[in-house]
Amino acid sequence: MKTVNLAEKLAQFTTHWDPHVVAQYNDNDVMVVRFAGEFPYHLHEETDDFFLVLEGEMVMDIEGAPSHPVRAGELFIVPKGVTHRPRAEAECKVLLIEPKGEPNTGDPATAAAKPHI
Amino acid sequence: MKTVNLAEKLAQFTTHWDPHVVAQYNDNDVMVVRFAGEFPYHLHEETDDFFLVLEGEMVMDIEGAPSHPVRAGELFIVPKGVTHRPRAEAECKVLLIEPKGEPNTGDPATAAAKPHI
Repeated sequence: MKTVNLAEKLAQFTTHWDPHVVAQYNDNDVMVVRFAGEFPYHLHEETDDFFLVLEGEMVMDIEGAPSHPVRAGELFIVPKGVTHRPRAEAECKVLLIEPKGEPNTGDPATAAAKPHI
Repeated sequence: MKTVNLAEKLAQFTTHWDPHVVAQYNDNDVMVVRFAGEFPYHLHEETDDFFLVLEGEMVMDIEGAPSHPVRAGELFIVPKGVTHRPRAEAECKVLLIEPKGEPNTGDPATAAAKPHI
């Protein structure tokens, strides 16, 4: 049991689209991640996808629907089965929650490692 | 599907220890809440308890163990079964995640209503 400072965790890496696990909530990984550029469109068949912007601004593109800007202090939850693509013109820092072991791309073949820090 | 601005949601009420649901992530309620003073010691037998401080500072007291300060930009997850008490000397704004229907006091008889806003 310990307090987790998100800025300190984010300072431990500089890579983009590279989620790092900072805590666990029930069977979920709580992660920090830096976004810049466009992530591929993908979906999660069995889970919602939780995004909270900590710093900067991102856009959540939804396939076949309007895009949603998400700024610092705002959250966006993508329901399971919905094809989406986060993107950020400038670097954006995000708190991400997904079930433990869920591939961030929706596909184990292309997923990031999600190291614990 | 929509972007949720946490400050706008918090501006909709002024009561303390009164969590309001702003989104759902799988079977969890994502809530905003204002803390001030001391909450009763309690535990959740079946779930972890997720706290992220958005503004201000709180202390998480753990029965029989050291207390943990938690400041803006910091999170604290209380493991299931651990008796705890959040408190805040000055008002503190928090993002709280608990399974849908979980009583915030650990006891349905004393739990807050958790309205959706």
